[in-house]
Amino acid sequence: VSDEIGFIGLGNMGSAMAGLLLDAGFRLRVYNRTRAKAEPLGERGAVIASRPAEAVEPGGIVLSMLANDAAVEEIVPGEDGIAARLGEGGIHVSMSTIAPATSRRLAEMHRQTGSLYVAAPVFGRPEAAVAKKLWILLAGPQVARDRVRPLLDAMGQGVFEFGEDAAGVNVVKLAGNFLIASAMEAMAEAFTFAEKNGLERGRVAELFGRSIFACPIYQIYGKLIADEQFEPAGFAAELGLKDLDLVLKTASDSRMPMPLADLVRNRLTTTIVKGRRHIDWSGFTLTVAEDAGTR
Amino acid sequence: VSDEIGFIGLGNMGSAMAGLLLDAGFRLRVYNRTRAKAEPLGERGAVIASRPAEAVEPGGIVLSMLANDAAVEEIVPGEDGIAARLGEGGIHVSMSTIAPATSRRLAEMHRQTGSLYVAAPVFGRPEAAVAKKLWILLAGPQVARDRVRPLLDAMGQGVFEFGEDAAGVNVVKLAGNFLIASAMEAMAEAFTFAEKNGLERGRVAELFGRSIFACPIYQIYGKLIADEQFEPAGFAAELGLKDLDLVLKTASDSRMPMPLADLVRNRLTTTIVKGRRHIDWSGFTLTVAEDAGTR
Amino acid sequence: VSDEIGFIGLGNMGSAMAGLLLDAGFRLRVYNRTRAKAEPLGERGAVIASRPAEAVEPGGIVLSMLANDAAVEEIVPGEDGIAARLGEGGIHVSMSTIAPATSRRLAEMHRQTGSLYVAAPVFGRPEAAVAKKLWILLAGPQVARDRVRPLLDAMGQGVFEFGEDAAGVNVVKLAGNFLIASAMEAMAEAFTFAEKNGLERGRVAELFGRSIFACPIYQIYGKLIADEQFEPAGFAAELGLKDLDLVLKTASDSRMPMPLADLVRNRLTTTIVKGRRHIDWSGFTLTVAEDAGTR
Amino acid sequence: VSDEIGFIGLGNMGSAMAGLLLDAGFRLRVYNRTRAKAEPLGERGAVIASRPAEAVEPGGIVLSMLANDAAVEEIVPGEDGIAARLGEGGIHVSMSTIAPATSRRLAEMHRQTGSLYVAAPVFGRPEAAVAKKLWILLAGPQVARDRVRPLLDAMGQGVFEFGEDAAGVNVVKLAGNFLIASAMEAMAEAFTFAEKNGLERGRVAELFGRSIFACPIYQIYGKLIADEQFEPAGFAAELGLKDLDLVLKTASDSRMPMPLADLVRNRLTTTIVKGRRHIDWSGFTLTVAEDAGTR
Repeated sequence: VSDEIGFIGLGNMGSAMAGLLLDAGFRLRVYNRTRAKAEPLGERGAVIASRPAEAVEPGGIVLSMLANDAAVEEIVPGEDGIAARLGEGGIHVSMSTIAPATSRRLAEMHRQTGSLYVAAPVFGRPEAAVAKKLWILLAGPQVARDRVRPLLDAMGQGVFEFGEDAAGVNVVKLAGNFLIASAMEAMAEAFTFAEKNGLERGRVAELFGRSIFACPIYQIYGKLIADEQFEPAGFAAELGLKDLDLVLKTASDSRMPMPLADLVRNRLTTTIVKGRRHIDWSGFTLTVAEDAGTR
Repeated sequence: VSDEIGFIGLGNMGSAMAGLLLDAGFRLRVYNRTRAKAEPLGERGAVIASRPAEAVEPGGIVLSMLANDAAVEEIVPGEDGIAARLGEGGIHVSMSTIAPATSRRLAEMHRQTGSLYVAAPVFGRPEAAVAKKLWILLAGPQVARDRVRPLLDAMGQGVFEFGEDAAGVNVVKLAGNFLIASAMEAMAEAFTFAEKNGLERGRVAELFGRSIFACPIYQIYGKLIADEQFEPAGFAAELGLKDLDLVLKTASDSRMPMPLADLVRNRLTTTIVKGRRHIDWSGFTLTVAEDAGTR
Repeated sequence: VSDEIGFIGLGNMGSAMAGLLLDAGFRLRVYNRTRAKAEPLGERGAVIASRPAEAVEPGGIVLSMLANDAAVEEIVPGEDGIAARLGEGGIHVSMSTIAPATSRRLAEMHRQTGSLYVAAPVFGRPEAAVAKKLWILLAGPQVARDRVRPLLDAMGQGVFEFGEDAAGVNVVKLAGNFLIASAMEAMAEAFTFAEKNGLERGRVAELFGRSIFACPIYQIYGKLIADEQFEPAGFAAELGLKDLDLVLKTASDSRMPMPLADLVRNRLTTTIVKGRRHIDWSGFTLTVAEDAGTR
Repeated sequence: VSDEIGFIGLGNMGSAMAGLLLDAGFRLRVYNRTRAKAEPLGERGAVIASRPAEAVEPGGIVLSMLANDAAVEEIVPGEDGIAARLGEGGIHVSMSTIAPATSRRLAEMHRQTGSLYVAAPVFGRPEAAVAKKLWILLAGPQVARDRVRPLLDAMGQGVFEFGEDAAGVNVVKLAGNFLIASAMEAMAEAFTFAEKNGLERGRVAELFGRSIFACPIYQIYGKLIADEQFEPAGFAAELGLKDLDLVLKTASDSRMPMPLADLVRNRLTTTIVKGRRHIDWSGFTLTVAEDAGTR
């Protein structure tokens, strides 16, 4: 059993999450493609690895928080991949938002080396991660879940377990991002509707955030959308489009229509082709206002 | 100044609201087309009027909670209408969900008799009304708002004032019902997406209601939609369609596209033509499951 | 029985149609709100009336070709209306694109004066009207249809009769305009799809117009949409929006979802709010290109 | 140079097309996975091959008409693939409806063996193929187009050339199938709209097919949709869904929203999950009627 936890992928989310593990007293070996992003953690005592496998101890635990499916599929297989390095009894905690089908392939790669794979995608923007306010999903083999649970408890305000099938929580994560994007579409139409009829967007957003929709998504995104403040991005539009593409790909594979997902995906596509790839994904709501002639 | 408050319209919502006023010590004169529904309040001390104007004292306050625009427009104008009966300084508190344009016409009718008109639509289902958990919007002349405020405080958990233009809160109320219906569509697609990929609907609903969507709409409707429990109706599908029609009529008049409102309106229409007029409006989500082949 | 035919409404369409009646040897009494538009017909021998009723002979035939429902409803009823003026046995041939419900009201107004009402909406743009290429629908009492048929034959390349119920052809006309707008949406998506993948829009439009879609709508609008040539307008965007509003109002009254009509109506709405009210209605396809980032 | 033309893929379409080549005097070597389908052609003099490569002569011409991308990608590469067998100067005429990206990969496979690849997808149902009424698109290297042109002329009523880039005509073919599906959606909404308002579907379909939409798609599919006659299938719903999936995948790759394609794809998906996979693809219009409560 390992003493040092591996952490691969130190973007805004990953850096904040690794920082919480250090706060909780865990010892870390961290890796990021751009080494500079690892240095603040190095200053706090983390060992900086020069390639993914170097962040991993045989039989240990490694967490990954990467940008997309391809990035995860790159580090797992092969002689120098983390599956081989983890070996018998080692555990990979895959926290990225990826396709359920990818998760299934990753689980299989690990099975072949005797290592275990759990999926643990999270809800929350970077500022929520910093504040230890993430919600974390978890699924995979029971033995692995039990062993990684203390790590996850150190990073969020709640962990929800969904059984043995790792891919299941990737489905739930996609469903959640779809729900968030749908709420944004709904708010954008509602606020613009109010505005076109003489009301102040911000006042309407505030009302709903304090009454029937008194929950983070409506409060945080409600304010961003009412104020049309889409920079800096907490989660970029192009990543939002990637997630909606995954939602619709998974829906298509399971043969179901999702007209609201189509609508939101189309808005994100237009956002990208209009050159707004780097604004926050909630910025797709600009197209609601533009279609209504208010911008 | 009047001693007795008038209350017109004693459906599920109106009866509960009038009951709260009695609880708070107000004396009431009540009217309902079907007299039987007034009797429980009569037993608690309310005077039962035999026509709308009889529920009204000159210079007093009357509240109305009726099924649709036509029902309100029927009781206000004319010699025996409540506007004439209220006369100089009397106040009509219009709590029904009606079109902003109707509200504007009603305000004008009252202006002509020297009476005042405020709109005070509410959010909450009948069980919320009973529990004094309504959220109440309020707009109209300041002097009238100040005078009716104690009544509204007795009926809900919060009152939000939106200035002088009564029709403004009718816009906000429609925006709110649209937001609720949109959340239902989003949940139905998300839960069915999860179900088609091997997850349990109820477990997914519960997760979201306890985390990023921990607010009443997602908790209450999330459970109804996950369990597909659409009877008895808290708010019937045909009333939901009426509201979405008002939303889209108002959007069209103000020249704005609302594709998500179109989507939800179409689902409600299909719900009605399939003979489900009397189930809860959240029952439109059955069409999501049917389109996906899971029902 | 009358010798002179009345013709009310001399816009681009009406003028061309009245001209064809003169060509065919009919004698006309014409009326238009802006008298200047009547003068070219006056020079060709038509009598210019100074108010609608003056264009009508008792027991005669009058044709109307007006901009919207309100304009037709203004000239028919009342002491000086055309229904009273026509009297027993007179016939009103209503050729405007109006709601079926309006048509039903107009038929009733005529019934009360003993006059007869037939609806005869047309398909074709002004240049088709000039070239006697209109397609004309016809419904109403048999005796009236028989009597007006020679006039219609003089104005188009084909007349389709649909029985006794005048409002029926107003439904068909709305269905047709919806079909045309739908074809425009489809072409705009298809051409932009081709363009985004390296093909020339015009070449693609030409192919389809010469093969599987070798019919006027695809040929004429295909070229306009491929070339994005939306001025001058043959039929203005704001009239297109009016028609789609009628389609959706009629659909809503008969309880049916029309998601493709919603889509097109939304595009026309955006066209109007972006200040393009006066371009051709096919110009709504600009929003397809804009959403795809090619304009 | 070869004397015998190869033909691979003898479904309803392929058999009819190969038959036309025999009619025109060409000598054929044919291959089909299920040999029985090749026998009628064998009786007419075609040589029946027992594997794809056997249908091909070095330096010759082979046509393929297969069910999907995978089927084409299976026969081209490898030692026993048709690319190797064709060798220097041989030509593969790929007539299936496949993704542009697949076409690009196939062109590259051929380039590596010195053989040439042209794409030649067709428009028309099996009965049109039999009647030599297909419309054929053609793109690829000029030298190859010139050489195969007589074969294509023998199979259709018109050939449209689109230059050097083979994948371009696959784009156009997808655009065409999208246009057809869109016309079906439009007709279904229009006919149901008419029906809900008292008109006869068939009469309305006939009117449009004889006037503003006097072209094969509206005439043939108009009748099928009006009569709701979806069996036997000319082109099965599951193939229609495959094509719409290709359209939307290609649209997504080129970053463009196609809301009408989304709508039609969703209808086809619902058609499949409701167990109607084998009916004609125009049968997706049943969902229009079902949503309107008329079935």
